[in-house]
Amino acid sequence: MPHHPRQDHFPAAGGQYWLYGHHAVGAALENPKRRIHQILATSEAAASIGRGHAATHPAPEGTDREALDRLLGRDAVHQGIAMRVSPLPETDIYEICDSACDMERASVIVLDQVTDPHNVGAILRSAAAFGALAIILTERHAAPESGVLAKAASGALEHVPLARVTNLVRAMGELKEAGFWCLGLAAEGRQTLSEAKPSGKVALCLGAEGSGLRRLTREHCDLLVRLPTSGPIDHLNVSNAAAISLYELVR
Amino acid sequence: MPHHPRQDHFPAAGGQYWLYGHHAVGAALENPKRRIHQILATSEAAASIGRGHAATHPAPEGTDREALDRLLGRDAVHQGIAMRVSPLPETDIYEICDSACDMERASVIVLDQVTDPHNVGAILRSAAAFGALAIILTERHAAPESGVLAKAASGALEHVPLARVTNLVRAMGELKEAGFWCLGLAAEGRQTLSEAKPSGKVALCLGAEGSGLRRLTREHCDLLVRLPTSGPIDHLNVSNAAAISLYELVR
Repeated sequence: MPHHPRQDHFPAAGGQYWLYGHHAVGAALENPKRRIHQILATSEAAASIGRGHAATHPAPEGTDREALDRLLGRDAVHQGIAMRVSPLPETDIYEICDSACDMERASVIVLDQVTDPHNVGAILRSAAAFGALAIILTERHAAPESGVLAKAASGALEHVPLARVTNLVRAMGELKEAGFWCLGLAAEGRQTLSEAKPSGKVALCLGAEGSGLRRLTREHCDLLVRLPTSGPIDHLNVSNAAAISLYELVR
Repeated sequence: MPHHPRQDHFPAAGGQYWLYGHHAVGAALENPKRRIHQILATSEAAASIGRGHAATHPAPEGTDREALDRLLGRDAVHQGIAMRVSPLPETDIYEICDSACDMERASVIVLDQVTDPHNVGAILRSAAAFGALAIILTERHAAPESGVLAKAASGALEHVPLARVTNLVRAMGELKEAGFWCLGLAAEGRQTLSEAKPSGKVALCLGAEGSGLRRLTREHCDLLVRLPTSGPIDHLNVSNAAAISLYELVR
């Protein structure tokens, strides 16, 4: 039975980490920007990796489910495959603004201190499904790239760039200069998102659950909007609020 | 330092479980249908429980964060409070149909083998935020009521009933008889949900990620609809798909 020394899958920024699960691994194998250092796979999972990738990536090393459970923790749904990778190269806010330059319509998501990797991963997935250009988040107090985040993103981490900025308000300024309308999701918004009739280039700003957008972030939004929630509990999970907002933009 | 014997927080159906976190605990304390057997709280968390509940519920027993970590597992964000509870009394499909009887508009969610408690919890939260009447799911191959589910639901478990049925197709038949239009979310739907212009009473049927709705479930839907996703990855997380669909109904 193979034994792999257990590694923390929430590493410090810049560190290698284990990415796992079919969709996350499959998308990473097809991403030319992804540096892959080691591939561990059960015999079934190895068979599901396309042969085309074998030339440019390390050969899969055989393992078994129990060894992967020990390596990744029992809660990781690894589906028999894991890869040790470097985080993706960083994308900066100027690249994102440049890429939107010739577009009539574009959307980005701005996350203000969203720390839960499941939420950031799920938001990446919705961003990919609805064609958002990027997710902008802070370097600190935000979920780092990790196996948990990549698993929740189900492959979308390889498609939608995460741009980490030191100062969110300054990044919003750059987005505004590039023609983006900064809409902040906040319960106290007077209009709903659909009443605001967003069009053109839109940056959707969302805060962490509970605390919401910070005061300064809120003040730098062009408009605060809310979602038409009612009922006994009106706080949505942040990834659900992001999904609904992205849907409203393409609807 | 207090020691509580570690308990599994994914119990068998009918079993007691530990419910934790401020929102989940706060909502359960205010729910007259909730049977509470034991309350453990750090001194800070105990102070945050309203005094009004003291008479009808067991008195909180003092504990500390480390003891709760050991009891609930390190990944449980318990916020210093946990309660041992019985699952809520079961709601049946007839009660739900009855409650919709005099309504012109109503919505329910039908989940076909969604097993991830985080997803079911997040869907409960969106159901509460958008005023859905209930979530209908199968007795088997579906997430049981648990601490993880209740935490993800952030209190909504106390507000939106989960109705567990042995046969989903039969339940859909009952819903149709009660005037519900059964819309199945499926990538092969010809119309988008908004093109289908849902109105009146709607049952939104969603399947597990990957496998989607089972064939029989699909065949018993009145209409299959899709969401307008595009981009490199077009599969949404099931809780995001549910949130968007509920939003579309109230929009």
